[in-house]
Amino acid sequence: MAETLISVDLSANPHSNANVHNRWHPDIPINVWVAPGDDFKIECYDWTGGQIRNNDDASDVRDVELPQVHYLSGPIGVKGAEPGDLLVVDILDIGAKEEMQWGFNGFFSKKNGGGFLTDYFPEAQKSIWDFEGMFTKSRHVPGVRYAGLIHPGLIGCLPDRKMLDAWNAREKALFDTNPDRVPGLANLPDGGPTAHMGALKGEARDRAAAEGARTVPPREHGGNCDIKDLSRGSKVYFPVYVPGAGLSMGDLHFSQGDGEITFCGAIEMAGWLHIRVSLIKEGMSKYGIRNPIFRPSPIAPKYDDYLIFEGISVDDAGTQYYLDVNVAYRQACLNAIEYLKKFGYSGAQAYAILGTAPVQGHISGVVDVPNACATLWLPTDIFEGDLTPGPDGPKKLVDGSVDVPLAPDL
Amino acid sequence: MAETLISVDLSANPHSNANVHNRWHPDIPINVWVAPGDDFKIECYDWTGGQIRNNDDASDVRDVELPQVHYLSGPIGVKGAEPGDLLVVDILDIGAKEEMQWGFNGFFSKKNGGGFLTDYFPEAQKSIWDFEGMFTKSRHVPGVRYAGLIHPGLIGCLPDRKMLDAWNAREKALFDTNPDRVPGLANLPDGGPTAHMGALKGEARDRAAAEGARTVPPREHGGNCDIKDLSRGSKVYFPVYVPGAGLSMGDLHFSQGDGEITFCGAIEMAGWLHIRVSLIKEGMSKYGIRNPIFRPSPIAPKYDDYLIFEGISVDDAGTQYYLDVNVAYRQACLNAIEYLKKFGYSGAQAYAILGTAPVQGHISGVVDVPNACATLWLPTDIFEGDLTPGPDGPKKLVDGSVDVPLAPDL
Amino acid sequence: MAETLISVDLSANPHSNANVHNRWHPDIPINVWVAPGDDFKIECYDWTGGQIRNNDDASDVRDVELPQVHYLSGPIGVKGAEPGDLLVVDILDIGAKEEMQWGFNGFFSKKNGGGFLTDYFPEAQKSIWDFEGMFTKSRHVPGVRYAGLIHPGLIGCLPDRKMLDAWNAREKALFDTNPDRVPGLANLPDGGPTAHMGALKGEARDRAAAEGARTVPPREHGGNCDIKDLSRGSKVYFPVYVPGAGLSMGDLHFSQGDGEITFCGAIEMAGWLHIRVSLIKEGMSKYGIRNPIFRPSPIAPKYDDYLIFEGISVDDAGTQYYLDVNVAYRQACLNAIEYLKKFGYSGAQAYAILGTAPVQGHISGVVDVPNACATLWLPTDIFEGDLTPGPDGPKKLVDGSVDVPLAPDL
Amino acid sequence: MAETLISVDLSANPHSNANVHNRWHPDIPINVWVAPGDDFKIECYDWTGGQIRNNDDASDVRDVELPQVHYLSGPIGVKGAEPGDLLVVDILDIGAKEEMQWGFNGFFSKKNGGGFLTDYFPEAQKSIWDFEGMFTKSRHVPGVRYAGLIHPGLIGCLPDRKMLDAWNAREKALFDTNPDRVPGLANLPDGGPTAHMGALKGEARDRAAAEGARTVPPREHGGNCDIKDLSRGSKVYFPVYVPGAGLSMGDLHFSQGDGEITFCGAIEMAGWLHIRVSLIKEGMSKYGIRNPIFRPSPIAPKYDDYLIFEGISVDDAGTQYYLDVNVAYRQACLNAIEYLKKFGYSGAQAYAILGTAPVQGHISGVVDVPNACATLWLPTDIFEGDLTPGPDGPKKLVDGSVDVPLAPDL
Repeated sequence: MAETLISVDLSANPHSNANVHNRWHPDIPINVWVAPGDDFKIECYDWTGGQIRNNDDASDVRDVELPQVHYLSGPIGVKGAEPGDLLVVDILDIGAKEEMQWGFNGFFSKKNGGGFLTDYFPEAQKSIWDFEGMFTKSRHVPGVRYAGLIHPGLIGCLPDRKMLDAWNAREKALFDTNPDRVPGLANLPDGGPTAHMGALKGEARDRAAAEGARTVPPREHGGNCDIKDLSRGSKVYFPVYVPGAGLSMGDLHFSQGDGEITFCGAIEMAGWLHIRVSLIKEGMSKYGIRNPIFRPSPIAPKYDDYLIFEGISVDDAGTQYYLDVNVAYRQACLNAIEYLKKFGYSGAQAYAILGTAPVQGHISGVVDVPNACATLWLPTDIFEGDLTPGPDGPKKLVDGSVDVPLAPDL
Repeated sequence: MAETLISVDLSANPHSNANVHNRWHPDIPINVWVAPGDDFKIECYDWTGGQIRNNDDASDVRDVELPQVHYLSGPIGVKGAEPGDLLVVDILDIGAKEEMQWGFNGFFSKKNGGGFLTDYFPEAQKSIWDFEGMFTKSRHVPGVRYAGLIHPGLIGCLPDRKMLDAWNAREKALFDTNPDRVPGLANLPDGGPTAHMGALKGEARDRAAAEGARTVPPREHGGNCDIKDLSRGSKVYFPVYVPGAGLSMGDLHFSQGDGEITFCGAIEMAGWLHIRVSLIKEGMSKYGIRNPIFRPSPIAPKYDDYLIFEGISVDDAGTQYYLDVNVAYRQACLNAIEYLKKFGYSGAQAYAILGTAPVQGHISGVVDVPNACATLWLPTDIFEGDLTPGPDGPKKLVDGSVDVPLAPDL
Repeated sequence: MAETLISVDLSANPHSNANVHNRWHPDIPINVWVAPGDDFKIECYDWTGGQIRNNDDASDVRDVELPQVHYLSGPIGVKGAEPGDLLVVDILDIGAKEEMQWGFNGFFSKKNGGGFLTDYFPEAQKSIWDFEGMFTKSRHVPGVRYAGLIHPGLIGCLPDRKMLDAWNAREKALFDTNPDRVPGLANLPDGGPTAHMGALKGEARDRAAAEGARTVPPREHGGNCDIKDLSRGSKVYFPVYVPGAGLSMGDLHFSQGDGEITFCGAIEMAGWLHIRVSLIKEGMSKYGIRNPIFRPSPIAPKYDDYLIFEGISVDDAGTQYYLDVNVAYRQACLNAIEYLKKFGYSGAQAYAILGTAPVQGHISGVVDVPNACATLWLPTDIFEGDLTPGPDGPKKLVDGSVDVPLAPDL
Repeated sequence: MAETLISVDLSANPHSNANVHNRWHPDIPINVWVAPGDDFKIECYDWTGGQIRNNDDASDVRDVELPQVHYLSGPIGVKGAEPGDLLVVDILDIGAKEEMQWGFNGFFSKKNGGGFLTDYFPEAQKSIWDFEGMFTKSRHVPGVRYAGLIHPGLIGCLPDRKMLDAWNAREKALFDTNPDRVPGLANLPDGGPTAHMGALKGEARDRAAAEGARTVPPREHGGNCDIKDLSRGSKVYFPVYVPGAGLSMGDLHFSQGDGEITFCGAIEMAGWLHIRVSLIKEGMSKYGIRNPIFRPSPIAPKYDDYLIFEGISVDDAGTQYYLDVNVAYRQACLNAIEYLKKFGYSGAQAYAILGTAPVQGHISGVVDVPNACATLWLPTDIFEGDLTPGPDGPKKLVDGSVDVPLAPDL
């Protein structure tokens, strides 16, 4: 029986847990050590540290304090790991905390970060998803049920000083191109009280907090990649930058679509991972590795029938963009939402489905100037009814009696 | 036995074939008519109309006359089709022309359009791929063999006047933002001799040619989507804009990766499609359809093990981009190329593999400011050897004795 | 373009073709030789040599002359092949003859061989299946459509004298336990005019015909295995018994279920194979091979949702059999037929579906005395409608207006 | 959080648990009731009730007391269920007991029941399999690692009196054909102390025990089907024979191959199921159901590459059997074992792999007299090394330093 090396108490403040942190910094102390070949369990808070509750009121999503995110469990030291190695992580299993068999999906207010379709859904909304073993469904989004494709949204090793400096420099350069933008172009380090630097205390904590990178973006080390297929049973190869590697993880998702387009984003949950670690010495140079690589799990939901929506890089106003995959994928998503509305879903429900179901987002064409082409693959088997187009037109799958709760901006 | 409604003679000039055209315009006459429920065959030139030859000299790729592309077979009229309908196309089968059991992949010179990685591969290169039944392999790229995922890169219905005008207006607006750029931001209509307007002759031909949209980009009607999964056995629903629909198709690919990153692009071939057409009357409004949608084939290569490479929207110079999926996908591709080089492949061979093999490109994260995250999924079973990372480092899969022929810019 | 080494003329009598035979004997001359590494095409008659016609009259199935079957194309010699080697066959592609884009399925009269459910369907019936590219459907069995899983029902190398003698001895011993049984327990050699010994003539022909093994059963060399997954794209390793190997093949099927329960059996067709051959010298002893082994194709229909029926080894009369998988599989098939009848199919249509669709038959339990458990996996996606059980009971998928033509015993 | 309705204490004797039983009888009291739509958890002993231990000594397998098996948890009553209904069971999840993260596979002595290959492996052997999240591996069978395809080997509803009588009558009739056979042709009811009749006590218990059917064979109600695909996420439709249905389950397997050929048999474990129940009123007649039917899980290990072994119904002595699938499957299994021995495995290790890995057993041909053809599908991805045949012959995957412990018959 694998030992649980880091526990979290969902009723306690994450800041009270010395094995949790929410910024990236090489000085965060490694308190937990394992040897190559060990397997063990790690518990994790949900990404917000418990700010969202299981009810029908979206005001907690509207008022969420984002500088707190993401609460990660770690860093874990691996004996013998040195900069330049590859840390091999076998994700043996992932599950929800026994006392929290539910998760949440939300759209942030545009004033608080928004999401991929924030211009279309500018206010805070929230759906609650109940877990039933391997499956999930929502009282706010009827007519769909998915098998979980459970994964950590965020996982990676501590940066070294040089990498941290590079991150801060390049993100600040971008931020400075439009410093007044809401939301900001990047989230720069802040020394405030929301920064949780793990076991670091006092002046050392303050110094690190002032320059510790936010956990929001994915970066060279992996980090907040939000890759839905980095799931139970997959095998990941992470670059190592500091002695001991310092692996941290969190932001668990029960299910998510490619792009995590709702931003909050997936079906967010608290839970645990069961992992095994090993090393490939000097693996970065041996294999020319700069970012993590991984192999997918032999176990994942088999949804093999899809309805596929295309989008091109022309926006709703008819403006032509040059090979812009983001615009194309946004149009593909909007096309899927319009389609689902014909079957009785509200726009918000359709958006929530695209954010939480194992939809695929493919970069289908990226060279045929000036239009990029992106495709959104919607698995038809998650619907309790038939989505196929036919001569008789769509039959309603839901009756419109419920919708995703919305909390208006104050 | 299905009738062949449009034949092409690969030894003849495509301009001599009245059932072929290479521009989009509502005035192109529909000469071939079918009824809903009919199935039939259509033959197609390769996209260049035979400009590329089966040899080891890339000068034909370097000197290719791109204003000629793409030679499409059609337009085909469907009796009873009216604007607003959906034209349902069952792709019953696709194959190579008996007399041309090979295809080509190329990188264009940066001066002539380039490709997704043109800054890294700026000169013309060409690889030839032999077909062996359902499989293909190349004397220029040893150690890999794929099952074909055969599809039309380009298929769609004729635009009406209003749509054509919208296309031309928005593309010109983009072009005009940087009219001197090489390659151009868009390919605008030209009235030159390369325009083939089907059966249209004389003044009518010249008038249409002067405003006929180039076939290069994908647009609302589908067109040059280059979606690798729109393959044999898939079912596609196309918007109809003109009476009779006017369906045209071409640019057949034996195999291609998501993004068609080499631009020329897939394994290009001449061949035939066997299709069935039917109609959903007023389907566009019934289903809220703006772009084609489709369902994938029940028959496609099963490559279920992948090595997955991540890329983020920071370029090689360390510049930070804001949620730019293109930059992220380019980095994922470059990461895969560096990896393959460790196994003995040249950069050009690795690039050719990414362009021709059924690699997947996923939009993995698009909300975690400022970094987009894209993933490149490389199927491991196409390699005759083991690509998995291990403690002992990579073992060469190829000996480096051959490379992809290059024709230097003149 | 691969060369066609053996052609068949469907309008000519197979006995006139010296590269066709319908018995196994080491003396059948090898007229066609290839080298290891060669790829080439081979054409084949349907297994009956053209006795069944595309009409709505089953009398040809009732009156079929079974001593003629199966007409095989070959034997093909592979230079350098010696007894003890493994002959590796890559099935690069398979297709129907251009002039015969249809196939047939039949139930034989119980008096003429019957089938797996002959006690339930004792008289001759026939359904015709039209090919539409990769798909097939039947005017006699509405409401279903399958993608082809095309394969040779029969393929293998010539036996040597010792193996032929062993076959004849053991089959005669079985036959002799009940020599008057109709149909016979085995089909023993006969020297009659239906035996086609390839290029062998005169007395040599008569001698070989008198002892040539019938092609009906699968044996050590492979032969009439009727394995639906030995399909386009698979790779097979055959034992070699005679110098040159002497590979023959035929009995092509467009689609078939596990067990080929209708006996005639699959969707039978005339067509061609495109194959490549190579050798593993002394492969039989190196790998401990007695029967062929194979690897499945990377390309096959993806039907991933099934309705699974169980059967146990107790027959309809309530008699208990000891771990008898045949009885169990028969009960599973009968259970599926009863189920399909609730959706409007006739018993004969349901039986034809089980024989022709890519159903799976699994040996699920074979140790829990006294009952074997077998499962019949029916792919739900082949039906144009919903087969799932629900509270409201079955909805008819077909209206019963057509059935499978029957020709009463005379 | 789903409630656990039946708990088991692995350190206590199963006979002390009133919600456990090991015989089928309509009089076994239903103590636990649920309503249609409820989901809940049920804990289960391993099938032997804890007789096998995690060590390297097979004497516990040799000395196992088989009259005790199988310990089932139940019967569970479903309010409103009546004879003729279908009980729908959604298997939401299955897992191992936290305190027993391992399972066992064994071959029984031929004197004590044997297994499918008992003539080749006549003495007791045992392998222990450790669970690592979703995966398992064994110190006794190195070089393989599987993802679990976890399922209940045994599940079904209580028979009514009429069905029980039919079972007993037909099995006794078979038994009586050879009453002295070892092992017996069937296991008839016995009134001895090993019979555990749940909450039934005193005379009522003795009366029921004397006629309660053994749990060994699968029967009309499902029961000991040992179907590997009736796994987490599948949906099963059970016939109901008594008011309240009386659903019982047990004999959990972490992984198993088709046929469960080792008899003991799969990787046996103690654990829990999370299920939901609902009803289709009068479903048996609505759908013509006699045995359970089910739909497979959307989540299951994806092992898509196989090495496929054929077997025909001729035994090692050269005796010809008439269309006997058992003989054919046994030969296919023996062929696979010979093959694996060339890669360094002992025969016992190879046999253990076939019994525990998700191998498929297909009924490939069952009409080509006199030979049945069965195929054994061995997933290649479970091996840490390459199993493909090649010109250079097999490379050892294991060094032969360990084997499966054997306890000689006393």
